[in-house]
Amino acid sequence: MTTSEITAARFERHRLSLAESFTISRGTTEEATVLTVELEDEAGRVGIGAAGPSAYYGETAESVEETLPALLDVATEVGDPHAQQVIEERLAETAPAEAAARAAVSIAVHDLAATQAGEPLYRRWGLDSDRPPQSSYTVPIDSPEEMRDRARRTVERGFETLKVKLGTDADRERLDAVREGAPEARIRVDANCAWTAEEAVEHTSWLADHGVEFLEQPVPADDIDGLRRVSVEGELPVAADESCVTAADVGTVADAVDIVVVKLMKCGGLRPAKRQILAAKAAGLDVMLGCMIESSASIAGACQLAPLVEYADLDGSLLLADDCYDGIVQPDGRVDLMATDSGTGVR
Amino acid sequence: MTTSEITAARFERHRLSLAESFTISRGTTEEATVLTVELEDEAGRVGIGAAGPSAYYGETAESVEETLPALLDVATEVGDPHAQQVIEERLAETAPAEAAARAAVSIAVHDLAATQAGEPLYRRWGLDSDRPPQSSYTVPIDSPEEMRDRARRTVERGFETLKVKLGTDADRERLDAVREGAPEARIRVDANCAWTAEEAVEHTSWLADHGVEFLEQPVPADDIDGLRRVSVEGELPVAADESCVTAADVGTVADAVDIVVVKLMKCGGLRPAKRQILAAKAAGLDVMLGCMIESSASIAGACQLAPLVEYADLDGSLLLADDCYDGIVQPDGRVDLMATDSGTGVR
Repeated sequence: MTTSEITAARFERHRLSLAESFTISRGTTEEATVLTVELEDEAGRVGIGAAGPSAYYGETAESVEETLPALLDVATEVGDPHAQQVIEERLAETAPAEAAARAAVSIAVHDLAATQAGEPLYRRWGLDSDRPPQSSYTVPIDSPEEMRDRARRTVERGFETLKVKLGTDADRERLDAVREGAPEARIRVDANCAWTAEEAVEHTSWLADHGVEFLEQPVPADDIDGLRRVSVEGELPVAADESCVTAADVGTVADAVDIVVVKLMKCGGLRPAKRQILAAKAAGLDVMLGCMIESSASIAGACQLAPLVEYADLDGSLLLADDCYDGIVQPDGRVDLMATDSGTGVR
Repeated sequence: MTTSEITAARFERHRLSLAESFTISRGTTEEATVLTVELEDEAGRVGIGAAGPSAYYGETAESVEETLPALLDVATEVGDPHAQQVIEERLAETAPAEAAARAAVSIAVHDLAATQAGEPLYRRWGLDSDRPPQSSYTVPIDSPEEMRDRARRTVERGFETLKVKLGTDADRERLDAVREGAPEARIRVDANCAWTAEEAVEHTSWLADHGVEFLEQPVPADDIDGLRRVSVEGELPVAADESCVTAADVGTVADAVDIVVVKLMKCGGLRPAKRQILAAKAAGLDVMLGCMIESSASIAGACQLAPLVEYADLDGSLLLADDCYDGIVQPDGRVDLMATDSGTGVR
C-alpha cells in the first residue's frame, strides 16, 4: 500500500486563448481563464487538477483565487490523498458556493492517489476503457454561414456528433445551415435556457425534422414544469443541464427529462459527479458528461468517469488555441482511456 | 499496476448452525446455508465471497448452486478482476433473479482485485476507516422473558443498539420486556411487513414511548402508500427494506420513508449496493447497511461500504455458532476497517 503525504500545494492562473470565439445564448467568450492546481507528495509525485470558473454560477477567476488557499490547506492538513471521502466533505464545508475550485482540488487529489498506486483512476474504479462514448464538438452561435462551415470542418476532423448552440432570433435558419454543412452528423441542440416551454415545444418539430437526437436545457433553470412540458408535448428527448446542478437535483428533474448533464465544475468534484451519475441512472435517466471551457488538466478527470455514461461532451480543452497540460481526449473527440498511464492521464 | 488473470474458480456449500434459533414474523430459522466462492489468480492469490440465499426473494441453496457455475464462468472468461463494471453487467444478464449468487461473485472479484493491489477495498474507494457506525444486534421474536434476557446479554457484550423483531400478537408485551432487559439501549424495531398501515401508526405511539429510534418495514413490501402513511401519521421515522430492493426502487420510496436498507444479497453485489446507497443519499434519505444471516466471507464485503452509511446492521455472521471464514466485525458489533490488511479483510 503506497501512501505518501501531501507536502506541497500550489495553484496558477492561466489566460488561454480560444481557437475561435465562442458564443452561446448568454454571451460571447474570446478567452478562458483557468486555475491549475498541483499537489505534491513526499516522494515528489504530483497530482494535477484545474478549475474552469463559470460566471453563470457566480464564479470568477478572482473568486477561485480567493478560495483555493483554504481548499489547498484542507488537502495538506488531511495529508493522505486516499482519504477522499474526508477531503471532499471538508472542501464542501469550506467553500460550498465555489464548485469549480473544489473540483480542481478533487481532481488533483484523485490524480495523486492513483499516481501513487501506479494505476489509472478508471481502473481503480473498476471501469471499462472500451466504454467511453466519443465526445461531441460544439458549434457555437454565429452567422449561418460560419456555423455551416464549422459543422463541415468538425465532421472532417472525425467528429460524428455536433452539439449546436441555439437560442437566437434565427434559430431555424442556423440549424438549416449546420445540417447543410454536416448532412450525416448526429446533432444535439443546446438552447442554454433561452426558450419558453411553448417555443421549445414548437421548435422540436423542425428540430426532429433535422434528425436532432435530443434537446438540452430549452427553458430557464428553475422552470421544471417547462422541462416536463417540452418532454411530454415535444417530439424530442430533453436533457437537464442548468436545472440539475448536483445529485440533490436529480429527484426534481427525474420525471421531467430523459437525460441529465453532469459536469465536474457544476457539482464540485469527482465523488459528487459519481453520486449525480449514479442517482440519475437509478432514476432511469441517461447521463451526458459535459464540461465548461476547461484545460485538459480537469477534462482528464472527467474522462475517467466516461465509462459510466451514455453521452460525452468533453470538448472543453479542444476549444482552446493552447493548453497548459496534455490530456487524453483525442483531436477527433475519442476518449482514449488506454492513454492513461496512471492517475487521470494528465501530463 | 498489478494484474493477474483469474484462472480458477470454485464454490462450496456450508450448513452453519445458529448460536440461537432465529424467529421473525415470517418464520423460524435453526441453521443457515451459505455458499462460499473462491476466485484464484495466476499468482495463487485468492478472492473470497459468499452467498446467503433468501427464501423471501425466491432463492434457495439449490438455486444458488445451479446458478454459480455460469457466474464463475463470467469471472474466468473476463479474467481481469479489475474489470468490475464489465463483470457485474454480465452477472446481471446471466442471473437477474439470483441476487445472492451474484453478490458472492461480486464480493470475491473485488476482494481479489484489491488483494492484487495490496490495498484494503475501502481505501481504493477513498473511504474513511473511522466512519462505520457500530452494528446493531438482533433480538428475534421469542417469549418476552427470552427477549428480555437476550437484550440484557447483548448490552453486556458491548452493543449499544438492538434491532428488535416484532410482528406478533403480543408485540407490546415483547417490547416492554426488551426495554426492561436493556433500559439504556438504542432500540430499532423491524416488523418485516407484518402490520397494516393503521396498526403501524397506532403502534408508533407506544414504540415512541419506549424511545425507539426508527421503525423498519412496518407494512407489506408493495404497500408504498402504507409506508407513506406511517411516516406522515406515525410518531417515528420509517425505513424501507423489502420495499426497496435495488437502486431502481429508491425513487418509489423516496417520498414515503426516511431511511433505506441496503443489503448486498438483495441488490446483488458491491457496485449495485453503492448505486443504491448513493441514489438514496441523493434523494435525501439516510441509509442502513443490513444483511441476511451470512458468513463473514460476505459481511466483510459489506463492511467496506460502511463508511458511506448512517446505520449498520451487520450482525449476520455474529448470529452463527461457527463460521467458515473470519471477518472484521468485532464481537461487540464494531466494524474494524483497520483490521483489513487488503481486499475485504476476510481471512
